Amino acid sequence: MAEIRIALAQIDTCVGDIDNNARTILERAQQAAGAGADVVVLPEMTVTGYPIEDLALRASFQRGAHAALEQVAADLASRGLGSLTVVVGTVGATRPSSDHPEPRPTNRAVVLQHGAVVASYDKHHLPNYGVFDEFRIFAPGHETCVVEVRGRRLGLVVCEDIWQDGGPVAQMAAEGVDALLVLNGSPFEEGKGHVRTELAARRAREVGAPLVYVNMVGGQDDLVFDGGSFVVGADGTVLTSAPRFVEHLLLWDLAEDADAPHRGEVAPELDQDEEIYRALVTGLTGYVRKNGFRSVVLGLSGGIDSALVAAVAADAVGGENVVGVSMPSVYSSEHSKDDAKDLAERIGATYRVQPIAPMVDAFQGELALDGVAAENLQARVRGMILMALSNAEGHLVLATGNKSELAVGYSTIYGDAVGGYAPLKDVDKSRVWALSRWRNNLALDRGEIPPIPESSITKPPSAELRPGQVDQDSLPPYDLLDEVLDAYIEHAEGRVELLARGFDADVVDRVLALVDQAEWKRRQYPLGPKVTALAFGRDRRLPITSRWREPLS
Amino acid sequence: MAEIRIALAQIDTCVGDIDNNARTILERAQQAAGAGADVVVLPEMTVTGYPIEDLALRASFQRGAHAALEQVAADLASRGLGSLTVVVGTVGATRPSSDHPEPRPTNRAVVLQHGAVVASYDKHHLPNYGVFDEFRIFAPGHETCVVEVRGRRLGLVVCEDIWQDGGPVAQMAAEGVDALLVLNGSPFEEGKGHVRTELAARRAREVGAPLVYVNMVGGQDDLVFDGGSFVVGADGTVLTSAPRFVEHLLLWDLAEDADAPHRGEVAPELDQDEEIYRALVTGLTGYVRKNGFRSVVLGLSGGIDSALVAAVAADAVGGENVVGVSMPSVYSSEHSKDDAKDLAERIGATYRVQPIAPMVDAFQGELALDGVAAENLQARVRGMILMALSNAEGHLVLATGNKSELAVGYSTIYGDAVGGYAPLKDVDKSRVWALSRWRNNLALDRGEIPPIPESSITKPPSAELRPGQVDQDSLPPYDLLDEVLDAYIEHAEGRVELLARGFDADVVDRVLALVDQAEWKRRQYPLGPKVTALAFGRDRRLPITSRWREPLS
Repeated sequence: MAEIRIALAQIDTCVGDIDNNARTILERAQQAAGAGADVVVLPEMTVTGYPIEDLALRASFQRGAHAALEQVAADLASRGLGSLTVVVGTVGATRPSSDHPEPRPTNRAVVLQHGAVVASYDKHHLPNYGVFDEFRIFAPGHETCVVEVRGRRLGLVVCEDIWQDGGPVAQMAAEGVDALLVLNGSPFEEGKGHVRTELAARRAREVGAPLVYVNMVGGQDDLVFDGGSFVVGADGTVLTSAPRFVEHLLLWDLAEDADAPHRGEVAPELDQDEEIYRALVTGLTGYVRKNGFRSVVLGLSGGIDSALVAAVAADAVGGENVVGVSMPSVYSSEHSKDDAKDLAERIGATYRVQPIAPMVDAFQGELALDGVAAENLQARVRGMILMALSNAEGHLVLATGNKSELAVGYSTIYGDAVGGYAPLKDVDKSRVWALSRWRNNLALDRGEIPPIPESSITKPPSAELRPGQVDQDSLPPYDLLDEVLDAYIEHAEGRVELLARGFDADVVDRVLALVDQAEWKRRQYPLGPKVTALAFGRDRRLPITSRWREPLS
Repeated sequence: MAEIRIALAQIDTCVGDIDNNARTILERAQQAAGAGADVVVLPEMTVTGYPIEDLALRASFQRGAHAALEQVAADLASRGLGSLTVVVGTVGATRPSSDHPEPRPTNRAVVLQHGAVVASYDKHHLPNYGVFDEFRIFAPGHETCVVEVRGRRLGLVVCEDIWQDGGPVAQMAAEGVDALLVLNGSPFEEGKGHVRTELAARRAREVGAPLVYVNMVGGQDDLVFDGGSFVVGADGTVLTSAPRFVEHLLLWDLAEDADAPHRGEVAPELDQDEEIYRALVTGLTGYVRKNGFRSVVLGLSGGIDSALVAAVAADAVGGENVVGVSMPSVYSSEHSKDDAKDLAERIGATYRVQPIAPMVDAFQGELALDGVAAENLQARVRGMILMALSNAEGHLVLATGNKSELAVGYSTIYGDAVGGYAPLKDVDKSRVWALSRWRNNLALDRGEIPPIPESSITKPPSAELRPGQVDQDSLPPYDLLDEVLDAYIEHAEGRVELLARGFDADVVDRVLALVDQAEWKRRQYPLGPKVTALAFGRDRRLPITSRWREPLS
């Protein structure tokens, strides 16, 4: 049996950007061939990007993907790469049957050799939970696929196929393969890296062969793909792994002797704050670039949320492409203005000051608002200023709200909720502080200036919409709030379970009532990167018009 | 064989409002019993409301629904209605199995008799296309259910079960029943009434027995349920039907002699404009009431869109609960202001004038905007005024944009897109005119004052954001635009097919480019009632970050 070299091409595709995705496939194939690879494996739905949602149902899109795949196969051959085996994902189609006379789209992996598609595999298990809607758009496959390369039998499956017991993996075990290649579009969530390797280890043992796991990387709408491609041996050991959150070409040799597998470099693990911070940067980078922006604008209040968003933005697009706008009102404290300016200087952002009094006064002169209407007015004037700068100068507006605020509806629609992207949408307030400290410590470790002013981290949070206001006037302390939210939202516990955990009944009732009523606000919020197991929006889908309220005391 | 009387209880449930839904079930059962019914059939998921989306996954919600169902059964018995057979829908749970040790929610129909659940049926076919996501939240059932009432065999299925060939309907045909009872939550779309009766006729012939089709009515988020419950005979004839868009208790007797079925009243058909207009009214009524509002506020520009929305609103909540705000700028024509005032008087709305110049001038004094930024500024000041009135006075804000504008992105985020609900979101501009004329003619037929000023219908549409601006400066004529949009969006045709239909290539390319780039704007738009086969939002789900563009010339 020959030893063969497999290249795991961990790349960043863009949904619908078929030409560029095809170009990237060719480049990686060339690079892999140059490094002596026999096989190059790319992520799930490489040609089309992932997830394509209802684009799958459009005939012209299917035709476009099909034509691009044929062209890639031809280009590989014409570049002298015909003998390289290239495994890519794309949108396929079922063969018409009596039950389904019209072809239906499939989530397909194909094998290219010598200018042609020599084998293909349609994903069996179509996930339809959490962020996934594949059962909606794809028809499942029912066949297995094994391709031979220099006498070695390589089985093919796609992502969810290894997350379900039985199915094609069990069939691979029965048919016998020398390695199982898995194409993935597995979105990031905290701690998921370990879950993947443990799962892959179990499947490798089931199949009795190494498992080659190739994941995509990059931000796509509200999903962040973290890469972290790897190979586990037949005994479940991680043999080699790619770094996360970057494109990478990982080479691994499938040994002649199954009992003496080759090992390669293993990427260092990331701690919890680091992986989340990097997910935020990756998500924002992808959203800005893939939507054709070059710069971002955000309001700098002097508070911790906008400071962390600015730091993430500077890491994503460069401080010189960040515009921070201080928009003080009569209620803004001096320290807020100082902290905002200090932050902008630390990260090298453009800093502007635009007081809101002239506009607020104009509205008040006409409408004479008070109470919540007057508070919201201030937030909305700020939102309009940011949108005006976006329209005039072309920056993407970032919303700075965090998950705790979003959970309880502590935000102003068309005010601080304005923006194309909300980096902290899935980051609760406790984590906002932790990430800020982590990022500052990283700077200190590197001998750099910490991006976030210390006083933004230490002062009590305030929306500064009325004199002396602090968040804790309306909300429980954030550490307590975040615990209740975690139990109620992430773990879907009810009031009974929350009280049994020892939470105070008044706090529980107050928080649950706020959460149950805030769905319409959450629905209006911009997209943000999913980093936890349960992100608002794609993961958790609720009616707006619902009179369900968790039963209270 | 006994003749039995079946009551079709076409009711308006609310998602999550379990107590009120239970109360309605009891009231209808009482009413049906009073009318001599042996059996009363209610719509799909009566206890919980429909669609419940991810509420299905919350244990406390399942417990609440279960307790309410038990209570309904007990209350029926204690009110002396134990001998009445009551068929209701609710959320059920699978029995734990080795494959699935945890119970999973099901979409269940249950039969109540003598204070107890005597039979239950879990929906087999879980739709997961268009507006539906049931495969995401429910586990499918695999058993059939037949209940005997006075010696008559009544089969039970739920909604999608009759839309799929084979499955439980085929099993009913094999097992033999005297009638098939179908509980439905079938959302409105234009022309769907006929589709339903034709389908039901086919299934009735398959089963060889009458089919009793009970549908819900009322607005629920972006779905409108139109009722229109009916009975078809074993030969496919419609034997009786309920009026649409209203609650109704329809009685029908299952004859002893299958060859001599009873006939009852058949509701008159609605023409296309009437059914859509009534769907808009039903949708808005439900959204306002179920979200706890009593009144609405909207900007009145003098144009046709806001005029139609105001007319719909007056029909939904009463003209006295509509606040119309004229917000003229320096570009507003005199006729616009006159038409706005005229409209408000015609529908009996509160009318206010709030010029935007003071606020626009304040922003311009600080920011000196021009071009699109200056145009958007005007729309956003108007949005802020409406939100301020909403916050101060508690009205629901209505957005007035139509489907044609939304398709091409001809709207200002945080400007005219502000609002909790958008009645015309799924109504294209051509239909806006048709509905306006239809509504005015209805008034003339009734000897009432037509709600919409004639000049709002006849004048050329303009956003009035710069001097002399009309929509046709930036867009093709609406009749042409709507044809292209219909082909590209509703029928998912590509450029090739559009050109083959004879559309001008320049128009096609311009429109397609606009549509492909406007997804992020559509995503930010408020909910509105689905009335066509393909509504933006729930029906058509696309990534925002997509570089897919229909290939142009």
